[in-house]
Amino acid sequence: MRIVIVGIGAVGGTLAAGLSLAGIEVAGIARGAQLAAIRANGLHLRTPDGSHFAHFPCYADPSEAQLRPDDLVVLTVKSQDSASALSQLRLAGMTDQPLFCAQNGVANEQLAARSFPNVHGITVMMPADYLVPGETVVFGAPRWGIFDIGRWPAGHDEADQALAEALNTANFAAFVSDDVMGSKYGKLLLNLHNVLEAAIGRGALFKRIAPLLKAEGEAVLKAAEIGWRDVSASDTRREGLMQITDVAGARRAGSSTSQSLARGTGSVETDYLNGEIVMLGARHGVPTPVNSWFCRLADRLLREGKAPGHLEEAEVARALGL
Amino acid sequence: MRIVIVGIGAVGGTLAAGLSLAGIEVAGIARGAQLAAIRANGLHLRTPDGSHFAHFPCYADPSEAQLRPDDLVVLTVKSQDSASALSQLRLAGMTDQPLFCAQNGVANEQLAARSFPNVHGITVMMPADYLVPGETVVFGAPRWGIFDIGRWPAGHDEADQALAEALNTANFAAFVSDDVMGSKYGKLLLNLHNVLEAAIGRGALFKRIAPLLKAEGEAVLKAAEIGWRDVSASDTRREGLMQITDVAGARRAGSSTSQSLARGTGSVETDYLNGEIVMLGARHGVPTPVNSWFCRLADRLLREGKAPGHLEEAEVARALGL
Repeated sequence: MRIVIVGIGAVGGTLAAGLSLAGIEVAGIARGAQLAAIRANGLHLRTPDGSHFAHFPCYADPSEAQLRPDDLVVLTVKSQDSASALSQLRLAGMTDQPLFCAQNGVANEQLAARSFPNVHGITVMMPADYLVPGETVVFGAPRWGIFDIGRWPAGHDEADQALAEALNTANFAAFVSDDVMGSKYGKLLLNLHNVLEAAIGRGALFKRIAPLLKAEGEAVLKAAEIGWRDVSASDTRREGLMQITDVAGARRAGSSTSQSLARGTGSVETDYLNGEIVMLGARHGVPTPVNSWFCRLADRLLREGKAPGHLEEAEVARALGL
Repeated sequence: MRIVIVGIGAVGGTLAAGLSLAGIEVAGIARGAQLAAIRANGLHLRTPDGSHFAHFPCYADPSEAQLRPDDLVVLTVKSQDSASALSQLRLAGMTDQPLFCAQNGVANEQLAARSFPNVHGITVMMPADYLVPGETVVFGAPRWGIFDIGRWPAGHDEADQALAEALNTANFAAFVSDDVMGSKYGKLLLNLHNVLEAAIGRGALFKRIAPLLKAEGEAVLKAAEIGWRDVSASDTRREGLMQITDVAGARRAGSSTSQSLARGTGSVETDYLNGEIVMLGARHGVPTPVNSWFCRLADRLLREGKAPGHLEEAEVARALGL
């Protein structure tokens, strides 16, 4: 069994490094400066318990990884990049190997199921940053991250158990779940404030607006009769397994949306977070003015090349009538 | 009111030319050789009633079209190209103008609703070909095509009426529908044989396999409790309005999938046609072996650069146990 991780960013990098350090066979798919840095020096994983260098094979395209029948494939690219990653996997000859969608949002599993028969979901609760090629920083301790893993649309099988076992062998905490999508919808509700944080940081106005975003999300999921599991800070599993803590010399870069802006990637996943709520709201007749406003704002942040947290609070308050 | 058509291929080209010839203001978004040909000579529309040259402004990117508040925007790119087209529209400043998804498949409306508030669907029943830059051929007569138009997820509004009126002023037949997605699911069932035709043409084996693909599709839609409208050849509206007929000097190129292979576009929309049935089947526990097999075959046709209709019938029959 080999674990092929497609997209070596914050989550993919921490997973690949952690599994590799535990002696599990890993292959990574990365691009550009990240690929070059990993090939030259391995991946530098900075954690609360110290610094590690992980060395694993890394490729520009899954076709170079020569996929095997017993590979487990984990997709960690952002949702907006899933379609092209899935297309590359198909052209690389992937057929019925288990495909695990470890991304934020709930759209990837459905997209993947249009072309692959063996689709699984992973909810990722892992405070990880990727800002500099060749380096990821993870702030969770004692375990680096918690994962719910299961088949899409529901249930679990031996592939979920095998992946969970590998992750638990490494310094992660993984749970096999028969309702992984319920867990992912719970995570979606938490991710609704990613764009808010990317816009104005986590000051006083953040604390006023974040509950509005989440309340719209909860109203929409209720109207759509979609259940969710609370995976927020009050998830009792976090207490003993993973608290957010300090890493020597590192400062948290914030949500994945903030990191995308900071890295200047030219895209953010807002459409698959707040946009999912807006879409479901339109389908079920629930107004979502706050999430809609932040979807439009994401375009502006990209267009204007804003650094994360640098929009004026006053402007946001005025636009939302607060 | 201006109609902005994003994707000047077989459907988009016929629409743009037809509307423009009827004196309605049109702007097209096209690329490469198609854009250059239209800019140089207009678009040559060949029809059963003769040859027409339509002249309308055509741009490489919607930002050049300077979108207006009273534009109607019609999306006619293939489903696999929707995400990038939607992204371009957002960056071009599109906000709440009506967006009509005129594509095959049923995934585009949901994708569009993640970023736009005013989403509509169009079912396209129009035998149109695009093989050569600067030229589209439409084989429908007396009207060139029939369209169902309505809001996503249901209902209709004045934008649907305005677009239908424009189309009826031109040589099309448009119907406003409160259940456009029901009509689009009916069209999806018809499109399931596109990849089959692209593989082996329309011989004896085609006639055996096409009903198998459709029967799986119907079983899946029933299990998913999704209703559909029959828009096949037995749709009574076709009789008086649009029959497939001859165009002087032209031979039908076949389904959109055959046309994509013939043009060597490097992608086909099978994932959004047969793949939609496979995904819904996995979600609702209905086996879809025939549609699944043809999803995988689509990759092979692309990889091997097959000309449409050139796979051996015997090989397909053997693989499917027929």
